[in-house]
Amino acid sequence: MTKAQLAGISTAQQRSIVEVSGLFFGGQDFQVIAGPCAVETPEQMDIIARGVRYSGASLLRAGAYKPRTSPYDFQGLAEKGLDILASISERYTLPVVTEVTAAEQIPLAIKHASMVQIGARNMANYELLKAVGRSQCPCLLKRGMSATLEELVMAAEYIMAHGNERVILCERGIRTFETYTRNTLDLSAVPSLRELTHLPVIVDPSHGTGRRSLVLPMALAAAAAGADGILVEVHHDPDHSWTGDGRQSLNLTQLGELMESLRSIVSAVGRRLTPYGLSNGGIGVPVLS
Amino acid sequence: MTKAQLAGISTAQQRSIVEVSGLFFGGQDFQVIAGPCAVETPEQMDIIARGVRYSGASLLRAGAYKPRTSPYDFQGLAEKGLDILASISERYTLPVVTEVTAAEQIPLAIKHASMVQIGARNMANYELLKAVGRSQCPCLLKRGMSATLEELVMAAEYIMAHGNERVILCERGIRTFETYTRNTLDLSAVPSLRELTHLPVIVDPSHGTGRRSLVLPMALAAAAAGADGILVEVHHDPDHSWTGDGRQSLNLTQLGELMESLRSIVSAVGRRLTPYGLSNGGIGVPVLS
Amino acid sequence: MTKAQLAGISTAQQRSIVEVSGLFFGGQDFQVIAGPCAVETPEQMDIIARGVRYSGASLLRAGAYKPRTSPYDFQGLAEKGLDILASISERYTLPVVTEVTAAEQIPLAIKHASMVQIGARNMANYELLKAVGRSQCPCLLKRGMSATLEELVMAAEYIMAHGNERVILCERGIRTFETYTRNTLDLSAVPSLRELTHLPVIVDPSHGTGRRSLVLPMALAAAAAGADGILVEVHHDPDHSWTGDGRQSLNLTQLGELMESLRSIVSAVGRRLTPYGLSNGGIGVPVLS
Amino acid sequence: MTKAQLAGISTAQQRSIVEVSGLFFGGQDFQVIAGPCAVETPEQMDIIARGVRYSGASLLRAGAYKPRTSPYDFQGLAEKGLDILASISERYTLPVVTEVTAAEQIPLAIKHASMVQIGARNMANYELLKAVGRSQCPCLLKRGMSATLEELVMAAEYIMAHGNERVILCERGIRTFETYTRNTLDLSAVPSLRELTHLPVIVDPSHGTGRRSLVLPMALAAAAAGADGILVEVHHDPDHSWTGDGRQSLNLTQLGELMESLRSIVSAVGRRLTPYGLSNGGIGVPVLS
Repeated sequence: MTKAQLAGISTAQQRSIVEVSGLFFGGQDFQVIAGPCAVETPEQMDIIARGVRYSGASLLRAGAYKPRTSPYDFQGLAEKGLDILASISERYTLPVVTEVTAAEQIPLAIKHASMVQIGARNMANYELLKAVGRSQCPCLLKRGMSATLEELVMAAEYIMAHGNERVILCERGIRTFETYTRNTLDLSAVPSLRELTHLPVIVDPSHGTGRRSLVLPMALAAAAAGADGILVEVHHDPDHSWTGDGRQSLNLTQLGELMESLRSIVSAVGRRLTPYGLSNGGIGVPVLS
Repeated sequence: MTKAQLAGISTAQQRSIVEVSGLFFGGQDFQVIAGPCAVETPEQMDIIARGVRYSGASLLRAGAYKPRTSPYDFQGLAEKGLDILASISERYTLPVVTEVTAAEQIPLAIKHASMVQIGARNMANYELLKAVGRSQCPCLLKRGMSATLEELVMAAEYIMAHGNERVILCERGIRTFETYTRNTLDLSAVPSLRELTHLPVIVDPSHGTGRRSLVLPMALAAAAAGADGILVEVHHDPDHSWTGDGRQSLNLTQLGELMESLRSIVSAVGRRLTPYGLSNGGIGVPVLS
Repeated sequence: MTKAQLAGISTAQQRSIVEVSGLFFGGQDFQVIAGPCAVETPEQMDIIARGVRYSGASLLRAGAYKPRTSPYDFQGLAEKGLDILASISERYTLPVVTEVTAAEQIPLAIKHASMVQIGARNMANYELLKAVGRSQCPCLLKRGMSATLEELVMAAEYIMAHGNERVILCERGIRTFETYTRNTLDLSAVPSLRELTHLPVIVDPSHGTGRRSLVLPMALAAAAAGADGILVEVHHDPDHSWTGDGRQSLNLTQLGELMESLRSIVSAVGRRLTPYGLSNGGIGVPVLS
Repeated sequence: MTKAQLAGISTAQQRSIVEVSGLFFGGQDFQVIAGPCAVETPEQMDIIARGVRYSGASLLRAGAYKPRTSPYDFQGLAEKGLDILASISERYTLPVVTEVTAAEQIPLAIKHASMVQIGARNMANYELLKAVGRSQCPCLLKRGMSATLEELVMAAEYIMAHGNERVILCERGIRTFETYTRNTLDLSAVPSLRELTHLPVIVDPSHGTGRRSLVLPMALAAAAAGADGILVEVHHDPDHSWTGDGRQSLNLTQLGELMESLRSIVSAVGRRLTPYGLSNGGIGVPVLS
């Protein structure tokens, strides 16, 4: 297999910093991306975004195109969802990341969000990677459920080789025999990826464990392991989320507790939580479109 | 998760037979699909297709769009490859199956081939599944590297729910800790899928093991387990294949030996190898386009 | 790691045959070992052994020392179980294989049975392997739940290096993410082990799948893949077995059907089921003690 | 399966604290156990033990009985190794934990060490668990390579049901498809085990990753996830260790750096590193035998 020439570690003497609407991944800041699995209604997004903003998290996540195991389950609001996201993003001065599942969704997603996400199911959907590569939009690339770290780096290489260098990797758990957790969160991926690539690495403890009670300790562990941020599912009413992912969603109070606990760990490893009102809410508010 | 209403076993009292250019999957016939990983040149395809035809195998496989782990590795000949395939298919009266990796490739693929393939990497690429569902072309759907059987059936449901019922499932090995084989071929998937779906099931012992020496015994085992056919990689000169998959490719002599060994096993389980010259080469030659 | 000098393939130009009370593993004969998970009562063993004998299977299996996940579950009848086994073995002229879980059980087990079994949980219990190595009793060595093939061969090497060359390997399924089956039966282990060792290899489709309905097709597949025999769980009343393994046990009628189906597959690969009344029931009855 | 009545969480309203020679696991203290894979020579142990003592780690680990994949590899010094351990333990006032691989080793091990270890290979060696259960010696129980968390808790139940309640669990990595790391360290096991058992839980980042460079970040992550301690391999000259485990061993300088980095993380989660000279080196030195 041909080497990762752009994503590989040898190409950069130092780690890369990826900028997303004025926020920096891979530097000193530890970024917290929070939000619901899916955009459901303007009211739901308003409540959650306000909570996310208030908590000090720096980006909002929510899906308008939802890859679901069953074709009969809620597939997302599509364009209508993107409209809601854009409006909420502006109202709370919160950059937004949202998933794309096909190349034709990219232009609209970029218009409404600050970063697109390639989900675990599509990590090896190379045509989608190429399309994101041609798009010049920051991309959050999640590790496939059974992808090796080398394959994850090569997926990033696909995006970079097509012209887009702003890639952030995300460990989100792998499939193993253990059934207590939904996936097995492979935190050793964080320091391992440091040895394989110069790109920023964040961790998703929500999908990585599938259990609300495990999100906080694994978020702290991710920070201690050297992650550049986390991606957490948050819902104002997890038991009534439309996608049934409520089992792994924090409510807004729990998000506040998480931020509080994170602060001391992040500080202990020489990082900082993006100060509220500074990076993305003060003078020089990031332009989202 | 909502149930598989169309692919699920409860919807059909008996197993389904899927017709592909006059060949039947899921009935008494045991189908052998053989060919190289990728279309390389007209000459390569001519040699291999003649060997496949002569061996008694019933379909030709070869990829024009190759999903490769590295963006720098050979990605297939695309349209030029499809042209070669169509010409070879006509010359040897061999129906052809070829992989598609993006929705926009489907119309052209259908024009040149009898069946499209969704590869393991794209099993959960739901937008591609939906597009194939709208296409009305028979589809060979491979199990994802870490997909559960239930998820494989739900992927078929995506295709069927969008209007296309001609889906054939393919077990091609799953990811485990074992490194002697490239994947772990899960043959219990064959009788298990019988309990979960009415769709035909074939097995790919080439990707399933990654080793040429294991292809024949695992092909026999697949037949004994009740598979409706196999998909094997064959190359006239495996050590010089363009995709480096030669390690798992049979040469044409070995394909002949495989067909010979298969005959008695297939017969022992009450099936038959498609008689040469009958189903697809005699009177009533299947129309391919 | 130091190589397998005794179990490795390079040490023997041809495959080894292991003799167990007049039955041969690794030659032309295909051996069927059948019996319940555990010895429960003399009556239970009498009914089952009679059925096993009548079916044409060649060895009886049943455990007196049961390794159970919970310390509160039935742990086997120990010495009393071995007594029952020996008496049944003599009554039906059926050699017996039984599991040992500690070195101190070996002398008694050898006195009552023709072969000892090392279960999957103890494959890497090297002190037990050494003790069996010093014992000179044929040993059925099961693959650990997450043991690589190389590790399985090295476990055999432990036994052989301590003086006992009569080792038969058994593939019994490995742990993967798939939950439809209890384990994932890795049938590619059969031809793979042919490349790694000269020792006989059998397959346990009962533990390998955990589902009664899958035992027959996977037994046929094992034979087609080149296995030297199978180990199947059989109980006259599976729903009331004491160990709760009834879900994966055939009843005696199903054992008969299995033997019938096996006959043609075994024949198709150039092997034969041990003829009833010849190897172990006719003139020259094997001496068991 | 019968429930874990003693190890299960319902039996204790609060978490248990296990005392080992005056050190406490499961309370506020975060314990660091360090030492080489195997006892090699008195000189080797003296150098390493002094370094361990000086670093502020609280227990010494080293094996006298080594379970090795190959029977031809170094199997440990056995009794001679225990003698060395006991002498070093006394010289540096460091409690010692050492592995036992057979029941007959337990009496001698207890005489020379403060805690016995059941390794991953023997987690389901129930006869060994029972023997440790009858021994009344603190036991460090490592998770099997493919053991579920529930099975790990049931293994502890075996020990407790036989009379010994002083069990400490250890996550040490599980087997997955990923090959960059030797195992996949499942840190979610730490908070998960909090929900399943009241017993203390520590983490082994050395075996869990198999790479020296990953030990420090994963040790920090373990502390952040709520572990009660860590077990790390340390050697004064890793490249010349007798067991070839040097790839995952820290040298003594790196152990110092680890302790330094740990301090702030441990503090951030409201724990403390056992103060040097207080718990195990000051007035009231722990009695080891």
